[in-house]
Amino acid sequence: MKIAFQIYTLCKKFTLNIELRQLQSYSTRRELSPIILKNIKYVNASMANKKQPEWHAPVSDNSLPTLKIYNSLTRTKVDFIPKKGKQISWYNCGPTVYDAAHLGHARLYVSIDIIRRILTDYFNYDILFVMNITDIDDKIILRARNNYLFNNFKSTIKSLTPELIEQIRSALNDFAKSKLGVMGDGLENNASRDDPKYLLYVNSFREAAKALAEAEVALEYNDTSEEVAHKLLKESQLIVSEWLDKKDGASITDQKIFRDLAATWEQEFMNDMQTLNVRPCDILSRVSEYVPEIVVYIQKIIENGFAYEVDGSVYFDTVAFNNKEGHHYAKLEPWSANNEGLIEEGEGSLGSKLLGKRNKGDFALWKKSKSGEPSWDSPWGFGRPGWHIECSVMASEIFDDYLDIHSGGIDLAFPHHDNEMAQSEAYHGCQQWVNYFVHVGHLNIEGQKMSKSLKNFITIRQALEKHTARQLRLCFLLHQWDSKLDFKESTMGEAKGIETILNNFFVNTKALVNEFKQTAHESNGIHRYNASEKELMNFFREKQLAVHMALCDSFNTPTVMNEIMELINKTNIYVSAGRNNINMVVLENIAKYVTRMLKIFGVIGNISSEDIGFGESEQSTINREEVVLPYLRVLSSFRDSVRELARQQKSHGEFLALSDKLRDTDLVNLGVSLDDQEDGKALVKLVDKDVLIKAREAKLQLQAEKAAKKEAAAIAKEEERKRKLEKGKLAAEDMFKEEKDEDGKNLYSAFDEQGIPTHDNNGEELSKSRIKKLKQKWDIQKKLNDEYLACTASNSDN
Amino acid sequence: MKIAFQIYTLCKKFTLNIELRQLQSYSTRRELSPIILKNIKYVNASMANKKQPEWHAPVSDNSLPTLKIYNSLTRTKVDFIPKKGKQISWYNCGPTVYDAAHLGHARLYVSIDIIRRILTDYFNYDILFVMNITDIDDKIILRARNNYLFNNFKSTIKSLTPELIEQIRSALNDFAKSKLGVMGDGLENNASRDDPKYLLYVNSFREAAKALAEAEVALEYNDTSEEVAHKLLKESQLIVSEWLDKKDGASITDQKIFRDLAATWEQEFMNDMQTLNVRPCDILSRVSEYVPEIVVYIQKIIENGFAYEVDGSVYFDTVAFNNKEGHHYAKLEPWSANNEGLIEEGEGSLGSKLLGKRNKGDFALWKKSKSGEPSWDSPWGFGRPGWHIECSVMASEIFDDYLDIHSGGIDLAFPHHDNEMAQSEAYHGCQQWVNYFVHVGHLNIEGQKMSKSLKNFITIRQALEKHTARQLRLCFLLHQWDSKLDFKESTMGEAKGIETILNNFFVNTKALVNEFKQTAHESNGIHRYNASEKELMNFFREKQLAVHMALCDSFNTPTVMNEIMELINKTNIYVSAGRNNINMVVLENIAKYVTRMLKIFGVIGNISSEDIGFGESEQSTINREEVVLPYLRVLSSFRDSVRELARQQKSHGEFLALSDKLRDTDLVNLGVSLDDQEDGKALVKLVDKDVLIKAREAKLQLQAEKAAKKEAAAIAKEEERKRKLEKGKLAAEDMFKEEKDEDGKNLYSAFDEQGIPTHDNNGEELSKSRIKKLKQKWDIQKKLNDEYLACTASNSDN
Repeated sequence: MKIAFQIYTLCKKFTLNIELRQLQSYSTRRELSPIILKNIKYVNASMANKKQPEWHAPVSDNSLPTLKIYNSLTRTKVDFIPKKGKQISWYNCGPTVYDAAHLGHARLYVSIDIIRRILTDYFNYDILFVMNITDIDDKIILRARNNYLFNNFKSTIKSLTPELIEQIRSALNDFAKSKLGVMGDGLENNASRDDPKYLLYVNSFREAAKALAEAEVALEYNDTSEEVAHKLLKESQLIVSEWLDKKDGASITDQKIFRDLAATWEQEFMNDMQTLNVRPCDILSRVSEYVPEIVVYIQKIIENGFAYEVDGSVYFDTVAFNNKEGHHYAKLEPWSANNEGLIEEGEGSLGSKLLGKRNKGDFALWKKSKSGEPSWDSPWGFGRPGWHIECSVMASEIFDDYLDIHSGGIDLAFPHHDNEMAQSEAYHGCQQWVNYFVHVGHLNIEGQKMSKSLKNFITIRQALEKHTARQLRLCFLLHQWDSKLDFKESTMGEAKGIETILNNFFVNTKALVNEFKQTAHESNGIHRYNASEKELMNFFREKQLAVHMALCDSFNTPTVMNEIMELINKTNIYVSAGRNNINMVVLENIAKYVTRMLKIFGVIGNISSEDIGFGESEQSTINREEVVLPYLRVLSSFRDSVRELARQQKSHGEFLALSDKLRDTDLVNLGVSLDDQEDGKALVKLVDKDVLIKAREAKLQLQAEKAAKKEAAAIAKEEERKRKLEKGKLAAEDMFKEEKDEDGKNLYSAFDEQGIPTHDNNGEELSKSRIKKLKQKWDIQKKLNDEYLACTASNSDN
Repeated sequence: MKIAFQIYTLCKKFTLNIELRQLQSYSTRRELSPIILKNIKYVNASMANKKQPEWHAPVSDNSLPTLKIYNSLTRTKVDFIPKKGKQISWYNCGPTVYDAAHLGHARLYVSIDIIRRILTDYFNYDILFVMNITDIDDKIILRARNNYLFNNFKSTIKSLTPELIEQIRSALNDFAKSKLGVMGDGLENNASRDDPKYLLYVNSFREAAKALAEAEVALEYNDTSEEVAHKLLKESQLIVSEWLDKKDGASITDQKIFRDLAATWEQEFMNDMQTLNVRPCDILSRVSEYVPEIVVYIQKIIENGFAYEVDGSVYFDTVAFNNKEGHHYAKLEPWSANNEGLIEEGEGSLGSKLLGKRNKGDFALWKKSKSGEPSWDSPWGFGRPGWHIECSVMASEIFDDYLDIHSGGIDLAFPHHDNEMAQSEAYHGCQQWVNYFVHVGHLNIEGQKMSKSLKNFITIRQALEKHTARQLRLCFLLHQWDSKLDFKESTMGEAKGIETILNNFFVNTKALVNEFKQTAHESNGIHRYNASEKELMNFFREKQLAVHMALCDSFNTPTVMNEIMELINKTNIYVSAGRNNINMVVLENIAKYVTRMLKIFGVIGNISSEDIGFGESEQSTINREEVVLPYLRVLSSFRDSVRELARQQKSHGEFLALSDKLRDTDLVNLGVSLDDQEDGKALVKLVDKDVLIKAREAKLQLQAEKAAKKEAAAIAKEEERKRKLEKGKLAAEDMFKEEKDEDGKNLYSAFDEQGIPTHDNNGEELSKSRIKKLKQKWDIQKKLNDEYLACTASNSDN
């Protein structure tokens, strides 16, 4: 302050119009610099008596779109507004862990992962991403019990006995009645055909029946080996398990078998997710860890008047909730609210028939456990949580009374997500617990819903045997996340085609940029920014904007990928047109941008922000280029020298063969491509080993084909030569003498000295033209015979 | 459409209230899924007669700040609005390349780099970042000419002569007059003390005067060696160069010397920038590449009435411009508009005294070149661009008629940037060519302005000998970019302290997370999210928001670093409190966030987005053997084959020389040792490069020593031979005849026929034993003499 005032006085003296307030801001902002003092010293009163002129705040030409998300709660794209600034609270419905995850799961979790990455890495939100694991569920209970009972039963079977056959027959009969609707009198009960698993049941039944017949034959022939017995069990496993469960399921008391099955499949799921490069969630919550909280939560819903107990189970009162001012039941699919099929499916196969429910649409919050089912203590006796309550409780435990985003597969919309919202709103007494509901679309296989009975069920592991995780992710990127995706051979073909285009672009760019960095000197205008660069740069800017617009348009990744392809296409044209005059910085920047976007989408994993390309296929943290290239350059230039020397010394052959072997075999096996150039210097490229090996195999194949053709031609030629020689055995002089007509008579009766006919078999003289023609034939045979004689002569000479 | 209508009919039948419009959107959005059909089939009329209830658009609790930038045009923080959406056109003033870059440059370019990275990687803008290189400038001309003339002069000086001393004395006198203001009468002209280089001049003068006195002494003692002469020149280089330039500067015609100096220092600058991890600019523009465009640009300013020609130079008319409606001259520092000192400095030291200028504030757009100065043709004769015009022209060439951001050091604000804006607005006829002027603050050393005369001038290279590039960047991050930075020991101490805290945090977190991943199983509640995690998570969220706010507040990186330190502190407390019950995912996410922010600031270089830490420790844990050896084995076996083939083909020499060079030079430089074995196969070893290079040097040294010893032995042997030959000249018969005692008397008086003494000089007969001893000596001499005779005989034979 004091200094500021001194300067103020100084300024007044020099009639410098700086206001005291302005000077105060100086002195606090950057101390008083000598520059200011110097300026004041030199100041000239005539012109300097000035303030800064008015600044004009810029106006944006392109108003940028805001981020919109397709929200299942409105079935439209709406502006995305997180409640707390940059922070997003996000709850994602995770798997029920009782079996291997399939391609539909891959699509769901990879798509969610892509959206999460875009929100974090592109839109810069701070997300807390929570996912649950459903490890208490009727499917888990049944599967665990079935596996347990079947394995126990199997371990008691040491041979094929008539008793075993009787047991299996009995199991088959039970199965036919309960699942196929076959009555005792052989009539069918058509209703069961509505079961989506009907086809699976029919197939299982047929297989088991066949195995049973075979076993009966074996028994007849006294083959009672354990092997035959276990084969029968294996082929009727589903049916035997069901039969055992009905018989003994209720006897199971050890709850560990349920937890163990869940833990196994959870681990498998996590492994699949890691392979698919899905980011781990921030918080993973398991139902089994939240049972006490669930009980308390249910109690409060009862207190709030939206739930009631019946015989040890607790149900949510959908009608009471719906009638309450400010609440709505089934916000996502109000038209499904009383859909009995969906409701029943949502309640699980072990549910009692819900006889005490007040309303058809009511659903279980707490299920009384029968024996053979896992259970926890509660005010309503021993039981377990219903399916929907877990998500409400865990999300509410971790977050406050709202979620910015709730996500999951579209098949969960009703009843699961609608019930979840009703529960949470009933608990918190709030109007809108979830602000954005994000549902990923279905995945079909060749137009059909994936199912084990249709034999088009593809587990993630199976898919990864045919395609890489990157290819699958590219495929999902190419289809709008909220649309249905029909997975076909051609779908993956498209993804693979795009992968190839990207890869070629990266490999070429890196080779060009590396080469340039090796040879570039201080410069001679290489940085000059000409019309072609300006055009490319403008195109690049347009594409960057288009990508941004597409991402704002509910993460429209198919459009983004299309824009990127157009950018690569345009860049490739620029490169091939400019060959020796490419602005490498512009090229490199475009490649870095494409890399960055693909990294945001999770297509590219472990690569630093300054790099280009897919990086390593291996999970290593090293940059192969950086580490290995110096050695390879030394190798390549040694090889260049050897080749040059070999040419000079005319000792070509063997040295060049060595160099070729190095290029075509040893280096190919290491994923190194040497591109021999006109000037004798090879261009070193690091590429995918498998691609290189495939290319080499294709080349070898082509060579083999060519060689085979050549050989075949040689054989044909030899055959032709032999045929001619054979034909030439007959002397021209004798050729007509034995010639006969159809009846076996001689054609001619008289010949001249060369053996050319002069008269036909009737003794009549031949016409001149006839003789001329015969003479032509004679000449040909003469030549053939001469060749034959020459050949035999030379052979006998040797 | 058709399908949609069928469904519509169906819905009516089931009284399902879905509107036709809604169905249409389905059919286009995701085809008609079986789910919808199924829902319709099951629909129950009682409750499903509904639309989705109203959705409540969320309202954000925390309204987020917009990005504000401290703009020199207003001297306040103003909202940042790029003109074209996400695209930013940015022009940064680059260096004048005539000397090594110093710590002030480091601060400038690193700070700009930090801002650029934040805008790109955090705020997600698409930037086109252009930087110029000033390679036409009076400082470059003078430095290049001085170096050139001095080196030429030095090469003619082979000894110390009275003439040279006279020349240097004359140079000193000139210098004292022109730079120190010393008049002929010894009086001082105080005015020159205002020159900021005054102290440097005084020091230079003292050094040179001392050297001159020493040289005079040497001459007196007749030491006229080249060494003494060159010492004198070296210690008076500045003064001699000035003197030579005055004398011969105008004679220089080769323009290449100017370009070469600029190219050298440009390359040095680029190397410094790379070491400091400054991102390369998108477009680098050199003045020398844009001269034709500059000429056209100036012509248009003349046409527009804002410039005029005087005697082959062109000046900008500041008054005409300022008087024009809508234009303002000197927007950044209107109070400096007539500051003669600043104006003169801006015009360069080679300018004429601008006698024809219309107004004091006018400045050169085009300078007439005198002889000895580089020049280009123009409508106004041969000349070169003024300093300020280059930026206007290059920026306008690359961008349109505006810049979103123009940046540079604060010392360039007036006149350079003010003149640039005036030129561009005069050319484009626009009101505001630059929307945001970003000036990085000064860097002082221990409170003083950096200068060569104060001996506190620190080049970037010198700074990097004491501190790492990362430490320097952390230091710059800890000081607001637009404030003055006083660089002290304690400043760097603070940066190093923070580096240590960060490093400990990363190392600990990685160790914990890795340990956890080694031991974690399917889980037993380790993911449980309890009160302590919730508290840490909330703190984390607060800090993320605080960091965002600080970045929006004109890139307030000191606050950001402070928030990050607090976050680390809180996390460390959580970790030490929870020891065996840490939620690793939360911990890992915090470490990833810190890593990400430091990566955005360029503190962390090459590390993938999923990693934690500075990245080096990973680098060092790479198993180099594993990665590199496969390639080296291929290289080595190729070399083995080449050597074997060379031996077989007897084309030994050159191929083996190539192989040796590969082993002894190229591979040694990469830390690879090839050990050639007996069997022709080399053993490949990866060793420390420096060790290998030292070993190679030691080997060469040993070889040199051996060779020297051998040579010395040969010389000694030859000497011995010569000595023996010399000795052998004397015939054995004569050897005793001349032998004398100490007094010069003959030792012997009588000899036998072989010349062996028989009597001593007293005439007494010698004893037999005495004679025997003499005979032995005689035999030796006889042998020597024979050898001598044989040698001379054979020599005369030849």
